[in-house]
Amino acid sequence: MSVSSDLQATLDPSRRSWVEAANDPACDFSIQNLPFGIFSDSHDAVWRVGVAIGDRIVDLAVLEEAGLLVLPPTSANESGASSVFRSDSLNAFIALGRDAWRSVRIQLSSLLARDTVTLRDDAALRERALVPATDATLHLPVQIPGYTDFYSSKEHATNVGSMFRDPKNALLPNWSEMPIGYNGRASSVVVSGTPVRRPNGQLKLPDVERPVFGACRKLDIELETGFIVGRGNALGEPVACAEAEAHIFGMVLLNDWSARDIQQWEYVPLGPFNAKTFATTISPWIVTLDALEPFRVAQPEQVPQPLDYLRHDGAHAFDIALEVRLRPQRAREATTISRTNFRHMYWTMAQQFAHHTVSGCNTRVGDLMGSGTISGPTADSYGSLLELTWNGKQPLELKEGGTRTFIEDGDELTLAGWCQGEGYRVGFGTCSGVIVPARD
Amino acid sequence: MSVSSDLQATLDPSRRSWVEAANDPACDFSIQNLPFGIFSDSHDAVWRVGVAIGDRIVDLAVLEEAGLLVLPPTSANESGASSVFRSDSLNAFIALGRDAWRSVRIQLSSLLARDTVTLRDDAALRERALVPATDATLHLPVQIPGYTDFYSSKEHATNVGSMFRDPKNALLPNWSEMPIGYNGRASSVVVSGTPVRRPNGQLKLPDVERPVFGACRKLDIELETGFIVGRGNALGEPVACAEAEAHIFGMVLLNDWSARDIQQWEYVPLGPFNAKTFATTISPWIVTLDALEPFRVAQPEQVPQPLDYLRHDGAHAFDIALEVRLRPQRAREATTISRTNFRHMYWTMAQQFAHHTVSGCNTRVGDLMGSGTISGPTADSYGSLLELTWNGKQPLELKEGGTRTFIEDGDELTLAGWCQGEGYRVGFGTCSGVIVPARD
Repeated sequence: MSVSSDLQATLDPSRRSWVEAANDPACDFSIQNLPFGIFSDSHDAVWRVGVAIGDRIVDLAVLEEAGLLVLPPTSANESGASSVFRSDSLNAFIALGRDAWRSVRIQLSSLLARDTVTLRDDAALRERALVPATDATLHLPVQIPGYTDFYSSKEHATNVGSMFRDPKNALLPNWSEMPIGYNGRASSVVVSGTPVRRPNGQLKLPDVERPVFGACRKLDIELETGFIVGRGNALGEPVACAEAEAHIFGMVLLNDWSARDIQQWEYVPLGPFNAKTFATTISPWIVTLDALEPFRVAQPEQVPQPLDYLRHDGAHAFDIALEVRLRPQRAREATTISRTNFRHMYWTMAQQFAHHTVSGCNTRVGDLMGSGTISGPTADSYGSLLELTWNGKQPLELKEGGTRTFIEDGDELTLAGWCQGEGYRVGFGTCSGVIVPARD
Repeated sequence: MSVSSDLQATLDPSRRSWVEAANDPACDFSIQNLPFGIFSDSHDAVWRVGVAIGDRIVDLAVLEEAGLLVLPPTSANESGASSVFRSDSLNAFIALGRDAWRSVRIQLSSLLARDTVTLRDDAALRERALVPATDATLHLPVQIPGYTDFYSSKEHATNVGSMFRDPKNALLPNWSEMPIGYNGRASSVVVSGTPVRRPNGQLKLPDVERPVFGACRKLDIELETGFIVGRGNALGEPVACAEAEAHIFGMVLLNDWSARDIQQWEYVPLGPFNAKTFATTISPWIVTLDALEPFRVAQPEQVPQPLDYLRHDGAHAFDIALEVRLRPQRAREATTISRTNFRHMYWTMAQQFAHHTVSGCNTRVGDLMGSGTISGPTADSYGSLLELTWNGKQPLELKEGGTRTFIEDGDELTLAGWCQGEGYRVGFGTCSGVIVPARD
């Protein structure tokens, strides 16, 4: 990736902000991060575009109106002026294109840098432009035209194959040849914090001939990340693997809630449906691919070497530490039940996007593409309770609240993720949901 | 379904129109039909809402502006005035709700009836309000937030199971318990007439260890219908089977183009993906459920009796004759390669919708739900080339253009469907696409 020196400067590990909380080495929202989201607050119920910095959210519309933030003119935005920041989704902003994303990043990084006085020393404007995060409500950041979920962790696919198919041939032959994916349900993608109702559905009990109808008994998480498409492709026009990253706006944390009992009964031959469509939770902040650049690492070796259309030179994985935490209803403390890293993923986001479009399938701005469950190589790094408890056979001991095989009503499940820089973090915040009981 | 006497009158088989072409007993667009679509024409490139009648398209915006068509005030449309007819999709109109759909149907049926002089005898207005269909371009009628495809023909599921799994246990145990479905790709749903590019992808040849990349060699159709959601449901709020039809706006013809070789290699365990995502074609006219009411028939007996949440009293199938025609590139004449009927479908649309939402999954206005391939009980009534040629083993003889196992470049595939009333038809028109060669 060729980046301008201005863009490079936004990644400078030594840059600090006059928003002091951003300089805490454990703060997800350093000045190197600058993730985009949609928020409202107690003073203004209108949904609008914000950028997280420390314990504040920058209101981009206020900065634009004050003349401190200027959008470059583009074909989608001829005048340079815009209402893309007073919008209930990021789609219009994202549609302006990568030059606009980068320009905003560069301007914000400069405005928020410790020695830039413009905003820092304008108390009245600062008050309006920087909303305390504690006073804000975060909303779904994008209107999602299409949601695709991949299945790209070798460890996860192997674990699931061992449990449900054949331990000796756990990995199906097609898995090593392509990033297996399927269409998800976009309508039920919700933002972190939205309660998730335990689904009802058909359950096939081993000792009963016919299925019974009832509440899911094996409710699970899937620890995933997702990427948001920033530039679509037209129908019939595939995107080459080497070009694919230029189509990605940024990444989120994603919890692909899964009803394992419903899934096991329904999924042959057309794949998971009701087991997944009841909810998918994403984090409210989209961390741009630009902010992740310093954390680029080599993907695992791919054997056999992929077919030509799935090849790309260089490093296309990202070093993102990931955790899953479970907090029972009345517990004060959550237990971290898994620690893993996005870098373990076998197939890269670029390969996923190239594979998705190779048939000619079109994509659109705002499309969400999930990584698939991210399981690491060790038993404490698996990305689902299914794997962590080996389908319920090995209960997890919680610090507080007993043991768990699968999720119980009232449990709060939280995903967290961050890239650890030298003295700063580029973090995703959290992605959480509390399970409410099934309908009668 | 309780219908008012005015609505009942729109179904009167003896009603005739002053648009003479509508009175041809073989015309799809009788006055009993009145399907909705989106069109533009050589005089006005703006996309807008139209209703087909005989060889004309009624421009609803013109009628509304002339005061001949009045929308009832609704919560979505407080003033009664609207711009829903000057819109590039039907979504805003559909969102007004069933009372509005029915009111428009009743008013149009009356306006177009043979003895109603208002529009008939106003030459100037008639000229503006009735566009010759030959002068019009038809567009995708709805903006589709989500596309789901079911698999509800017992004959189709049995045929596919016989070919690819086990002829002795062709039907999987879950099939008889639920309308199996999966999420499709909404972005690549195109309107009839859109050329379809043969997809490239991974093909696993029987005599080669690894897959090869190339153009699909087993390109197929799937003869389906689809229904358009007219009223969505909120997340976590399932719709009971008995209430489900009230959520359906109408039906279309749907061709679920399928790359069989790509599908066979990719589909285990998460279902079809690239084999289907390159294109799905729907017909431009949405025939309302109200217009289909006289053609309601009993669904096939369901054994075992479905679980409670999938039960509904009464008749929930529809008698819709269906055909597939294939015309090679330079042939003048098409060959009808399949004749079947929607009434054969084992699972009803109401059951599909109830099953889709039973987990709590939400739906939205404009969602498209495909029936699954509609295969009848006899070998000439199968809804795919896969079945008609038994995976290529029994080539079809065409009237003109040789034989076919699967689709060749330049072939035009056309679906047609209609309900045959006494002296009139309620038809869907056609749903067609020409295959263009794969990209190099």
